[in-house]
Amino acid sequence: MRWIRFEENETASFGLVEGETVESVTGSPFDRWEKTGIKRPMAAVRLLPPVMPRTFYACGLNYGGHLKEVAIATGTPMKAPTTPDIGYRATNALIAHGETIVIPRDAGEKVQYEGELVVVIGKKAKHLTVENALSCVFGYTIGNDVSERSWQGKDRTFWRAKNTDTFKPMGPWIETDVDLDALVTTVRLNGKAMIEFPTNAMLFGVATYLATMTRYLTLHPGDVVWMGTDGDPANIKHGDIVEVEISGIGVLRNPVRRES
Amino acid sequence: MRWIRFEENETASFGLVEGETVESVTGSPFDRWEKTGIKRPMAAVRLLPPVMPRTFYACGLNYGGHLKEVAIATGTPMKAPTTPDIGYRATNALIAHGETIVIPRDAGEKVQYEGELVVVIGKKAKHLTVENALSCVFGYTIGNDVSERSWQGKDRTFWRAKNTDTFKPMGPWIETDVDLDALVTTVRLNGKAMIEFPTNAMLFGVATYLATMTRYLTLHPGDVVWMGTDGDPANIKHGDIVEVEISGIGVLRNPVRRES
Repeated sequence: MRWIRFEENETASFGLVEGETVESVTGSPFDRWEKTGIKRPMAAVRLLPPVMPRTFYACGLNYGGHLKEVAIATGTPMKAPTTPDIGYRATNALIAHGETIVIPRDAGEKVQYEGELVVVIGKKAKHLTVENALSCVFGYTIGNDVSERSWQGKDRTFWRAKNTDTFKPMGPWIETDVDLDALVTTVRLNGKAMIEFPTNAMLFGVATYLATMTRYLTLHPGDVVWMGTDGDPANIKHGDIVEVEISGIGVLRNPVRRES
Repeated sequence: MRWIRFEENETASFGLVEGETVESVTGSPFDRWEKTGIKRPMAAVRLLPPVMPRTFYACGLNYGGHLKEVAIATGTPMKAPTTPDIGYRATNALIAHGETIVIPRDAGEKVQYEGELVVVIGKKAKHLTVENALSCVFGYTIGNDVSERSWQGKDRTFWRAKNTDTFKPMGPWIETDVDLDALVTTVRLNGKAMIEFPTNAMLFGVATYLATMTRYLTLHPGDVVWMGTDGDPANIKHGDIVEVEISGIGVLRNPVRRES
């Protein structure tokens, strides 16, 4: 199933996508829901981020190629993490598919995309094992972990670098029927493919992360876990269009504007 | 006004405290609300954290005494932050006044309290100035930023060290009528005062933090900002009772248990 969240009568509703049509539901896929029978074309709805997470988790440094590029960029030896330490992002920064990434006027030139798989949690869970960890997953969506690199180097936290308003595009929808090993992530800038990598070729996979996290913390329905990116991202600038595609899930497309 | 959040018919309700009595309200203080006329004794309600924040912000290193102790503990020169960089905590870790802080069995001995003032946001806000920043504040409550120091040193993020389930007691209520300069924070361990400091003697005050944050991010009703702690906290262990009092707000009291 493919779930969207959209604006209807000034409130957020969930809907099921079938081809180019959306059927709205009452309630929420994270609780109880019922089909309403009301259908409309996908093109007629204003998409919202497919979930507003209770906690917004994010993995850093989870692909070999990205580790190498970070080492080159910072002039430090390449160092792979030895444990899956989870980090955090903030919901203020979330925008939907189609909405505009706004670069603040005092940001530097090194504002970059990071195409990521997003795990959406469906069930309250603690003390998962690697074997049963995926049982708490509701589905998957796509994230773009937009990052301002000069702030990332300067600030004690990632607050401006990664959590400035609009820096976290997520969507377009949640796909529940996914074969992780078959996924390929492609990032395109103005239509040109910039990087392509096997989505599941992570240092620590989804099940390992969820099992490790839930030794200490309880996951809740609607929580999201962004799984990190691979490679060496390029800069994005005013007027660009950035697309993150994950085969089997969809395409997350956002235009870029710099505040004037 | 003094607002609590409590469990009623298996859902969370808000209530207004008057002395030892609670009057429940419909709706939420962060939106629209109405008194119900239903009153009961405070002792008869099960408290919840007074708000479940959309984003859970936290300042680090915001008092001179704590900076000094961090420098001694880590054997590094004392270094005051030059900018108010905001950090994050996670909602999974929140517990209410009276609930138990549970230390995981594999935690070290250095599990410590940190008594903190918590700012509760009442209005959507961006681009605040230091002069008008406090206009977005709904009220204040109390937090205990429980921290496991060996994990804090080892992990790339603070996920286990500070966001293990039950490590973020918050409450007992939100007080809307507060004179920041008059507040005094006192932490007691098993009834013994361990530290006392003027709550508002921060390196960067509430207004400075909110103005700086909102240059880049939008604050939302219900967001919380934990303002940091002063001094050199002591360890807490199984069987302890830890209390954080802020004069003019109240007392946040939690027992401690170690998982067996």
